[in-house]
Amino acid sequence: MVQRNQIGKSAMMLALLGDGLEQENLIRSLEKDGFSVTLGKIGTMESHKIVAAVETAAKKNGIISSEFYREEHALYHATMEALLGVGRGVAAFGAQLRTVGLRFSIVRGKPYAKPEEGEWLAVAFYGTIGAPVKGFEHEALGLGINHI
Amino acid sequence: MVQRNQIGKSAMMLALLGDGLEQENLIRSLEKDGFSVTLGKIGTMESHKIVAAVETAAKKNGIISSEFYREEHALYHATMEALLGVGRGVAAFGAQLRTVGLRFSIVRGKPYAKPEEGEWLAVAFYGTIGAPVKGFEHEALGLGINHI
Amino acid sequence: MVQRNQIGKSAMMLALLGDGLEQENLIRSLEKDGFSVTLGKIGTMESHKIVAAVETAAKKNGIISSEFYREEHALYHATMEALLGVGRGVAAFGAQLRTVGLRFSIVRGKPYAKPEEGEWLAVAFYGTIGAPVKGFEHEALGLGINHI
Amino acid sequence: MVQRNQIGKSAMMLALLGDGLEQENLIRSLEKDGFSVTLGKIGTMESHKIVAAVETAAKKNGIISSEFYREEHALYHATMEALLGVGRGVAAFGAQLRTVGLRFSIVRGKPYAKPEEGEWLAVAFYGTIGAPVKGFEHEALGLGINHI
Amino acid sequence: MVQRNQIGKSAMMLALLGDGLEQENLIRSLEKDGFSVTLGKIGTMESHKIVAAVETAAKKNGIISSEFYREEHALYHATMEALLGVGRGVAAFGAQLRTVGLRFSIVRGKPYAKPEEGEWLAVAFYGTIGAPVKGFEHEALGLGINHI
Amino acid sequence: MVQRNQIGKSAMMLALLGDGLEQENLIRSLEKDGFSVTLGKIGTMESHKIVAAVETAAKKNGIISSEFYREEHALYHATMEALLGVGRGVAAFGAQLRTVGLRFSIVRGKPYAKPEEGEWLAVAFYGTIGAPVKGFEHEALGLGINHI
Ligand SMILES: [Mg+2]
Ligand SMILES: [Mg+2]
Ligand SMILES: [Mg+2]
Ligand SMILES: [Mg+2]
Ligand SMILES: [Mg+2]
Ligand SMILES: [Mg+2]
Repeated sequence: MVQRNQIGKSAMMLALLGDGLEQENLIRSLEKDGFSVTLGKIGTMESHKIVAAVETAAKKNGIISSEFYREEHALYHATMEALLGVGRGVAAFGAQLRTVGLRFSIVRGKPYAKPEEGEWLAVAFYGTIGAPVKGFEHEALGLGINHI
Repeated sequence: MVQRNQIGKSAMMLALLGDGLEQENLIRSLEKDGFSVTLGKIGTMESHKIVAAVETAAKKNGIISSEFYREEHALYHATMEALLGVGRGVAAFGAQLRTVGLRFSIVRGKPYAKPEEGEWLAVAFYGTIGAPVKGFEHEALGLGINHI
Repeated sequence: MVQRNQIGKSAMMLALLGDGLEQENLIRSLEKDGFSVTLGKIGTMESHKIVAAVETAAKKNGIISSEFYREEHALYHATMEALLGVGRGVAAFGAQLRTVGLRFSIVRGKPYAKPEEGEWLAVAFYGTIGAPVKGFEHEALGLGINHI
Repeated sequence: MVQRNQIGKSAMMLALLGDGLEQENLIRSLEKDGFSVTLGKIGTMESHKIVAAVETAAKKNGIISSEFYREEHALYHATMEALLGVGRGVAAFGAQLRTVGLRFSIVRGKPYAKPEEGEWLAVAFYGTIGAPVKGFEHEALGLGINHI
Repeated sequence: MVQRNQIGKSAMMLALLGDGLEQENLIRSLEKDGFSVTLGKIGTMESHKIVAAVETAAKKNGIISSEFYREEHALYHATMEALLGVGRGVAAFGAQLRTVGLRFSIVRGKPYAKPEEGEWLAVAFYGTIGAPVKGFEHEALGLGINHI
Repeated sequence: MVQRNQIGKSAMMLALLGDGLEQENLIRSLEKDGFSVTLGKIGTMESHKIVAAVETAAKKNGIISSEFYREEHALYHATMEALLGVGRGVAAFGAQLRTVGLRFSIVRGKPYAKPEEGEWLAVAFYGTIGAPVKGFEHEALGLGINHI
């Protein structure tokens, strides 16, 4: 379903699919190809909580090291880029009276054929954004990719 | 795979999947639920050509009427929101020496259970963005949703 | 003074004029042409309070239904566009140590000659933005228009 | 209709009113209060042509000196702020396949009671923005204010 | 080291150099040329505290008058432009879970040869931005210039 | 003058100093510490030419490899961040009728004490931005930092 060099498509599919067999198969296939994967959820009006949720999940599951800034820096910028897709140009939600409910995925590995291209990271979000009223929302998503 | 109210997930999946059986099945399932779907491709450094490609595809395939501004307005803003995801906060590519190669999908229909919520539109892009050098690129995507 | 198809000019004039005979005449003329109008005021450093004030005024005065997300979505994006004019590219004020005092107007109706163009919505703000010191401020305004 | 300290409201009203008696009366009243006023029009897809049109009108009509950068700098930033209102956060139109048709006004003078506050400048735009198809457009406006 | 007309370079050098002989020499040289200079420090996650710190330093040290809005307005916009350099397009830090530690300088005077160009103001920041974890940060800086 | 871990300060100083003994000394000191350095100049109204000038200089002088996308990606994002400082939130100049004349520097090396933090890259710009009229301009600068 997903080619080896499609780290972004892989991350987006994982977030879109949600729990279930398809997601599990994709994770297994990615892990067989040497990718690390983690998943999470966050509902909030404050964008810094989303950044923190992604970072915590990534460190807890060994996607990035918590000892070096370098890896945190790579993840941070990938996360911010993905959030700009969710907010469509804005990365602050409560300031605009919007609440988000998001699933996210993080995929790390070597998507390029040349070994010198090294490791890359993809962060994907999928969920809803809307007024703080049940059902007053539509879908939103975003993807950020960075070298690590 | 996709629930009836997930017009954004549907559009994103269509763009991610590309030509093939899975995409065809999803289109068939969407059309059975009363959604209209169209697909297209565009490679360019100029964002206005992307806007034009989406609009042309939507009109040619009857997704929006070409006689009323109202529908063009709904599509335009959905497209701009999706482009902000692709450009991660910027919707101009050549000005930054980036070239994009994108597949896109447009889905129109009634995603909400209440009939008064009426018709909505989702525009999704998936492809690559990068330097104007073969292979010097990574994936990018975006989704925009609007009422129509 | 204002033509039938100038829903934006109408909304901006209402916000600029403030209470008085000219404003009343314009409201009467708009209502005769089938437009709904509401007015409000808000002083704050937090942009989400402006969004909430506009929404509350619109629902309380029957400009939009409070039962359907569709209408809230149309109003929300019109409000955000108008706020970008007030903040000149930014829609967050307290984060920049700015306080705003704004009058706003909301106008809903059919500005286009063709009946198929349906209903549209205009949100206009006029007031002052500045340091949290009396008199240390200048005027600011914005207009957002959306189909509904 | 407009108070002496409302340089922004004055500029916006001039652009909204367009040619006619009301506009003439407002110009006369502003000039009596010591303000300089100029008006212009521009239709384009390129934002730099709008900047140039405002600057040319301001210099030709003696609103700013063409010999000193200081005054050009004040006008430039006021123009850019007004354009951000027109584009609602973006100040580039052709890149998004949008065409604008705008009237503009420039007002210069002393809006504050204290003489030390000196001279200020307001730039206002009013017109339409839309697809490059006749009638496929809605209104847009913006205001920028700066000390000079 | 710095030419008379390089008010921006002067401000940036002062912020870069930090306490010490080189900084003192540059201040002395600027003051001999008729420039006013002040320096400060701020560590925070909230951008409005940076704006407040700059303003307080400027007023306390007589760089701007605290009685007139005109001067506060000039400083405010110079500060915001400098902050956009620090945040690289964003001027809100805590919302993105970033903390900043900044030195700043403010320089006021006449950088242009023609006397009619009058006084200008430069605000420069230099420091670090990063995660709220010691050492997880990189350098950032920004410069804003305005006529006063 | 500059500490080993201040790759950003180093890059900014090189761009500020321009040709001369101080610049040469700083380059020598950086090279002794294992950093690679290159310098360049560009005058243009088109931001993509700035991106191209930086990239060409970096490749020609061996700062980045021209064979791997990874290094181009790191440089590209550092350049874009630095340009956002120059344009103070915007990275397109001709669209706003502004012309820029910039010196730039690129510094690559290991600024952190821990060897695992690896190599980083700093791009700095310093010059003028203004109207396309001689002398109608003020200084502008920017810095971008990325892991490589
Ligand atoms: Mg990238
Ligand atoms: Mg929406
Ligand atoms: Mg619109
Ligand atoms: Mg201002
Ligand atoms: Mg300027
Ligand atoms: Mg960074």
